[in-house]
Amino acid sequence: MLKASQHQVAGHEAAGIGNLGPLVDESGRFYKPLQGDERGFNEVAFYNSLSTNSEIPEHITRFFPRFYGTQNVEASDGSGLLPHLVLEDLALGRANPSIMDIKIGSRTWAPESSEKYIEKCLKKDRESSSLPLGFRISGLQIYRSKELGFWKPGKKAAQKLSAEDVKLVLRRFISSNTLNDLDLKPDCAFASTVYGGSTGILSQLLELKAWFEDQTLYHLYSCSVLVSFEKELALEGKNPGAQIKLIDFAHVYEGRGVIDHNFLGGLCSLIKFISEILTAPSECKIEVSAKADQKNVTDSDNGVVADQKNVTDSDNGVVADQKNVTDSDNGVVADQKNLTDSDNGVVVDQKNFTNYVSGN
Amino acid sequence: MLKASQHQVAGHEAAGIGNLGPLVDESGRFYKPLQGDERGFNEVAFYNSLSTNSEIPEHITRFFPRFYGTQNVEASDGSGLLPHLVLEDLALGRANPSIMDIKIGSRTWAPESSEKYIEKCLKKDRESSSLPLGFRISGLQIYRSKELGFWKPGKKAAQKLSAEDVKLVLRRFISSNTLNDLDLKPDCAFASTVYGGSTGILSQLLELKAWFEDQTLYHLYSCSVLVSFEKELALEGKNPGAQIKLIDFAHVYEGRGVIDHNFLGGLCSLIKFISEILTAPSECKIEVSAKADQKNVTDSDNGVVADQKNVTDSDNGVVADQKNVTDSDNGVVADQKNLTDSDNGVVVDQKNFTNYVSGN
Repeated sequence: MLKASQHQVAGHEAAGIGNLGPLVDESGRFYKPLQGDERGFNEVAFYNSLSTNSEIPEHITRFFPRFYGTQNVEASDGSGLLPHLVLEDLALGRANPSIMDIKIGSRTWAPESSEKYIEKCLKKDRESSSLPLGFRISGLQIYRSKELGFWKPGKKAAQKLSAEDVKLVLRRFISSNTLNDLDLKPDCAFASTVYGGSTGILSQLLELKAWFEDQTLYHLYSCSVLVSFEKELALEGKNPGAQIKLIDFAHVYEGRGVIDHNFLGGLCSLIKFISEILTAPSECKIEVSAKADQKNVTDSDNGVVADQKNVTDSDNGVVADQKNVTDSDNGVVADQKNLTDSDNGVVVDQKNFTNYVSGN
Repeated sequence: MLKASQHQVAGHEAAGIGNLGPLVDESGRFYKPLQGDERGFNEVAFYNSLSTNSEIPEHITRFFPRFYGTQNVEASDGSGLLPHLVLEDLALGRANPSIMDIKIGSRTWAPESSEKYIEKCLKKDRESSSLPLGFRISGLQIYRSKELGFWKPGKKAAQKLSAEDVKLVLRRFISSNTLNDLDLKPDCAFASTVYGGSTGILSQLLELKAWFEDQTLYHLYSCSVLVSFEKELALEGKNPGAQIKLIDFAHVYEGRGVIDHNFLGGLCSLIKFISEILTAPSECKIEVSAKADQKNVTDSDNGVVADQKNVTDSDNGVVADQKNVTDSDNGVVADQKNLTDSDNGVVVDQKNFTNYVSGN
């Protein structure tokens, strides 16, 4: 029997009535509805290419979900048989995974894309953290406890986090003290077991980076790194199963002899953020001043798959959070406020830059 | 006495009558006219910051021109005293340097830039090789011989080179057989002494890369890596003085805790191109099919500083070259042609991608 995937943090979700989204079965397969236009076509083509291309080293293929072809199955929205990509269910065997979906690259469009698509993507890249940070968090869920379930901020707000906010979220992701009070400073209790070590997230990201410095086969636009681990295992002192996987290949293009400098740049930016947590654990003590973004979703709460209205409500919550963070921080975030107030970004930045220079 | 800089390959040039451009003196100083708007202001601020910032390691400061402040000197265009940046003359002591000015980054604009500036840059990034390759060759001169002087293609054409053309130019740059016949296959005679070795170009680029993976002080937009060496020394078996320097800092912004993923991505792309020449010397035998782009500029020829009309003529020449290269190559470059013919890039690319997939 197919059922809705329980741990979808970005993209379409099948749970709820009338939504078209991914399904899973009990054997560990994940059924992703094939997008009807060229995106679905492209994604199938990419998976086919990937599974037949002998140039991709084995230690890299493990970062991609296993691919089992396409299959017509009953769609989750009740619209009947629809073609689905059949992939490995990345959440298989995981009870309560903490997950981040991080879309890599400051640019989500290819040089070859249509004008209309470029315009749409460029707007989103500029409004989200993609342009300044080189990546954006497309969605996340952080496990808190059996009673409290997951902390799962709205997707739209997650995508627009500032550099300081992203630092905070990446720290909260691997902290033990997210149970009752989001005012607590993240303790980064699981930094070394999840981000660090020879099999941790950083190590995996560095392996991926080395490949992207060299490979000229594919350019991946709008592709995500899915980061996950099991907090309960970490709490028990067991291996928390820290893992990265690449997902979403609807906008893959041939590399044509050039490395994917857009993906690589964004990946290096993410690596730097993660490295800093490992090398400067004392800086974990960032003030978290907002309760507005608390959204308690227990296991028995179907609200995990919020309908559009709820997502909006939750988005407003996190935006409030962002505002509070800004208020409590007169540094970098204040700059951002100045930039927002002014249309002439260059001059404002120049002013800041001069201040910065004279401060040395 | 100040005189016009003889080895300017990109940007404004002072030689000729009535042009405002950089000057040099005999003590090894380079006088760059301060751009009147915020660009000049920004560049001074950056050099001031750089020279007082103790966070920049010494092995990195050597990649920047030495800075001696600003000074009012007689402008080259006869307009009287104007403020100039006083910098190290990078061509000092070099008789006939081969030089490439490579603007790094697929994006030459900052998130904070004005709408008007973004629009202008984005257009240029898309029309040049910046977007696909992550960098563009803003100008170059390749020394041929005392009799023939330099091969110096038009700037506009150089900026639009395809991946295949860039590979060719990077090979020709370090070849000995560019004397009489540009139909010859570049022999890459100086690859190991200029690009390779512990003090060669690749090694220097890798040092710079390591810094950009870590530094969050500056974001450098529209900044160039200037690559140079002395072919005559290489021919004599002497150290050819292979050197990279970073230049042009009119669009530097504060990093604010984020690495310069845009510069880093482009730099890695350039590194991959150079690495390939060193690891696959046999592939140096690329067919060069065009004579149209030959422009012989001897030492006694003031045509080095072509007027606008000549630059255009020379541009057309190199474009013709590009076309010929395309005709002789039914592979990658043909794809590009298809993309140009179609407005709907995605669908065309999809088609190509499918072909590619089924070819495996």
